[in-house]
Amino acid sequence: MSFFEAHRALLDEAVNACRTRAYWSAFPEIASGRIYGETAKADGEAAFKAMLGKPFDLGQPGGAQVGKEVSPYGMPLGTTYAAADVDAIVNASLKAGEGWAQASIEDRVGVCLEIVDRINKQSFLMANAVMHTTGQAFMMAFQAGGPHAQDRALEAIAYAYEEMNRVPRSVNWTKPQGKGDPIVLDKTWRIVPRGISLVIGCATFPTWNGYPAIFASLATGNSVIVKPHPGAILPLAITVKIGRDVLKEAGFDPNVLMLAPDNADAPITQDLVTHPGVAIVDFTGSPAFGQWVRENAGTDLVFTEEAGINSIVIDSTHDFRGMCSNIAFSLSLYSGQMCTAPQNIFVPSGGIETNDGHKSFDDVAGGVATAIDKLLGDPDRAAAILGAVQNEATAKRVDEARKLGRVVRDSAPAPVAGFDQARTASPLLLAVDAKDDRAWGEERFGPIAFVIRTESTEDSIILAAQSAKRKGAITASVYSTNDRVIDKAADAFARAGVALSVNLTGGIYVNQSAAFSDYHVSGANPAGNACLTDSAFVANRFRVAPLRRQKAA
Amino acid sequence: MSFFEAHRALLDEAVNACRTRAYWSAFPEIASGRIYGETAKADGEAAFKAMLGKPFDLGQPGGAQVGKEVSPYGMPLGTTYAAADVDAIVNASLKAGEGWAQASIEDRVGVCLEIVDRINKQSFLMANAVMHTTGQAFMMAFQAGGPHAQDRALEAIAYAYEEMNRVPRSVNWTKPQGKGDPIVLDKTWRIVPRGISLVIGCATFPTWNGYPAIFASLATGNSVIVKPHPGAILPLAITVKIGRDVLKEAGFDPNVLMLAPDNADAPITQDLVTHPGVAIVDFTGSPAFGQWVRENAGTDLVFTEEAGINSIVIDSTHDFRGMCSNIAFSLSLYSGQMCTAPQNIFVPSGGIETNDGHKSFDDVAGGVATAIDKLLGDPDRAAAILGAVQNEATAKRVDEARKLGRVVRDSAPAPVAGFDQARTASPLLLAVDAKDDRAWGEERFGPIAFVIRTESTEDSIILAAQSAKRKGAITASVYSTNDRVIDKAADAFARAGVALSVNLTGGIYVNQSAAFSDYHVSGANPAGNACLTDSAFVANRFRVAPLRRQKAA
Repeated sequence: MSFFEAHRALLDEAVNACRTRAYWSAFPEIASGRIYGETAKADGEAAFKAMLGKPFDLGQPGGAQVGKEVSPYGMPLGTTYAAADVDAIVNASLKAGEGWAQASIEDRVGVCLEIVDRINKQSFLMANAVMHTTGQAFMMAFQAGGPHAQDRALEAIAYAYEEMNRVPRSVNWTKPQGKGDPIVLDKTWRIVPRGISLVIGCATFPTWNGYPAIFASLATGNSVIVKPHPGAILPLAITVKIGRDVLKEAGFDPNVLMLAPDNADAPITQDLVTHPGVAIVDFTGSPAFGQWVRENAGTDLVFTEEAGINSIVIDSTHDFRGMCSNIAFSLSLYSGQMCTAPQNIFVPSGGIETNDGHKSFDDVAGGVATAIDKLLGDPDRAAAILGAVQNEATAKRVDEARKLGRVVRDSAPAPVAGFDQARTASPLLLAVDAKDDRAWGEERFGPIAFVIRTESTEDSIILAAQSAKRKGAITASVYSTNDRVIDKAADAFARAGVALSVNLTGGIYVNQSAAFSDYHVSGANPAGNACLTDSAFVANRFRVAPLRRQKAA
Repeated sequence: MSFFEAHRALLDEAVNACRTRAYWSAFPEIASGRIYGETAKADGEAAFKAMLGKPFDLGQPGGAQVGKEVSPYGMPLGTTYAAADVDAIVNASLKAGEGWAQASIEDRVGVCLEIVDRINKQSFLMANAVMHTTGQAFMMAFQAGGPHAQDRALEAIAYAYEEMNRVPRSVNWTKPQGKGDPIVLDKTWRIVPRGISLVIGCATFPTWNGYPAIFASLATGNSVIVKPHPGAILPLAITVKIGRDVLKEAGFDPNVLMLAPDNADAPITQDLVTHPGVAIVDFTGSPAFGQWVRENAGTDLVFTEEAGINSIVIDSTHDFRGMCSNIAFSLSLYSGQMCTAPQNIFVPSGGIETNDGHKSFDDVAGGVATAIDKLLGDPDRAAAILGAVQNEATAKRVDEARKLGRVVRDSAPAPVAGFDQARTASPLLLAVDAKDDRAWGEERFGPIAFVIRTESTEDSIILAAQSAKRKGAITASVYSTNDRVIDKAADAFARAGVALSVNLTGGIYVNQSAAFSDYHVSGANPAGNACLTDSAFVANRFRVAPLRRQKAA
């Protein structure tokens, strides 16, 4: 049975899920031995440890070894990767792409599905690799780095598959000519890929943010060069290795999928982005570099997820404690290092009405602070939620942020058992006035949040939506018992291109973005120009070449 | 009955036609009184004449009158249009766009369909307006400027409608939580337009090339500013006027659709393209200005049709006379001023095999020349095929091209009865060697063609495909009795992103691109970055704003 046939039922389900956007998931998020195999956890850890301190062989052309990853939990990984000359990588990718471009839609999609399936089987290995590059806690690294990322890959494959199939493969075109013979043309169309697709990974969610582009480009026939962040190479190296194995088995040149690793002190990203051989660029990272990529790429086809400033507007609530707990979790999860994490909490100076009676501005700020303290009171639970801080610059940013407002809750280290050297920080919560937009009006990546005193909820909505338009935003959240307020927020955030969540309490958080349902990033504000995943994300990765043959008379 | 309901059956048929791409047309191309009304022809001409020599009132804000159109058939139109300050137009468009953005998909699509329907009823007026701005002969102006352009509009509306409907409007998202209560979110999605869409028209096919962008943008909720070429304002002014009438009737601000006319000596296009208020730019025109637009637009969302050099590869034929006649027509139609018209005819130096026996290189060149002479032998038929030359620069180009090779057939004026001052030119056919790529390797817009002596058909295919990759191409044509040659050409032109026609004879020409079937421009070579029409042409004209509400516990 072909790879395509083997995975076809799953693909059909995925296509259907993209259409309905009801809850669906292909890859179980529960890190259970009953699902992944009794020894999967131990095997994954062992496989990870076996990769440390030695070269990682991808079987790619390449020379000197690069790779200086250091776990945010303290230890250097010591894994190295063969670096390659940019021209050599591009040429190998170009050459490999020729055969890949000729393959049928089904053959390519089948290979992609098989790759994702095999990645799924390595979810525990991936969890370790993601944990010790991004700093995510183990469970999050398993879920977001494993099955959730795999779901995002499958979503992109499903979109690409459906989009290619919207182009009919052939038709008999018969144009009547009154009483004369009709004009008859046999028309066929073929999918033509763009060429080389460059995917630039980030350090916090290398697989989750990288997979949609990798698999959308592969499925549509492009060869892919994955440029990992120098701080998070291993998860994408494992991905590329699995991909190359499957490609080889299916009879393709494995250079259809290549890794282009580098060290931070000798970066190659700019050389790749500006290379005339590159036809598509996908970028996840900072707005500063994102802007450079958009302005300097050698191609017009650039998809970005940059960053934004996410807001919570608090107007009123039926569940004050539930609201505070929910916000506390959103601020704490992965120490605020999610692109979907809130930074700004807008509260009217007159306070709010709640099920526990009126709460002043300070009551609300205090309520959130108390909820954070309670959530992180148990050190083991704190470590499991916060994880570690990926980048030293983020830790430094937290230190410097204290002076930006009145400290409502201070950030503190959050020790992780077994990792004495882990770089950690719990949320810093600051109270500021709306006019202090020098403080809250900039992105403060990491566990830094502001409770902002506004004139009114209307003022809060205006400020948050304006900030989204100006600086970008991926998520917004509103708490209100008043439908008119909710409608007003819905209008304002829709116009600003921000995904809005309303009255979240309990086990669902504004940070979470579900594959097959939530459109991640709108592309309609500076937080990014692309969405994971919609038609626009896939439709331009290939073109259509028409052929019409006149029927012999 | 709403506009949407009134036209819904037609829309459904159009959506279906886009999927199957079998022959379908909504608007009859036959300029018959039985279809368009017994007095339609006379009414259209009278309406056109009534527009000459006076201001054309669009009811837009605006000051001084602009407009210096001169018919390629000789007389100045004398029609003038209120010019408007660029900022004033953008602000009016922005303001009008607010209500339009809030309208339902059905309301917007209904308005678009009604506009196209009313334009159809004015097809004879439009034929006169197109004829006396572009120089097309009357019948072509009727068909390409009327029903064919209307079909292209409907195709774009159908794509936009289907694309918006691929986003579900709402869903109940229920995520199981093992033995606990599921997480339930009510999710809704709304379509958010980009903002202002600027459509820059060309002088040769102002409606056919402009309608897809105008209607794709309108349907997806953007307000549209139409910037006509200063030489072909009237067809788009009529279009905008009809559109504004329908918008007003439907209760919308008519400034959702505005005209931004200018004079060639005081152009405003650059100010519009770089205006920060403009979110989408669609451009049809020269590669030189197209490059400027792509590099300088204030938005990343730029769709272009520029130009290319189209080729015919002659390898062998079962119907030598049919082939020569077909090519002669393609070279003559609208004096070679179609973006789909061939320029380069590649013939092996050893000649070709045909049903009439072996034909030398000179036999083939002579065969085409003779076929042109025969086609244009009758002055009335010649005028009906050639029409007039839109631009003085094109006429000059023909004069200067004579020195680029050996003249096989000279260009000559082709008088048009009743229009003594018409600017006309029949095809100039030159013979050159493959190495003379200084001659044939550049676009020579207008009735200029080269018969190029190559080493072999293989050489012909390589040269033509390379030229397409380097300079762009929209169409290619191959004549061969050998399936292996056809397959080789199909591969080469597909890789170059060129639509290939095979062995055309009789009443179908490589120049013709049918709505609902032929993907016009691939977007995969320098002839343009967009296709009329595919998903990629519409999918990024709007974004999706998600809203999720937690169900109260």
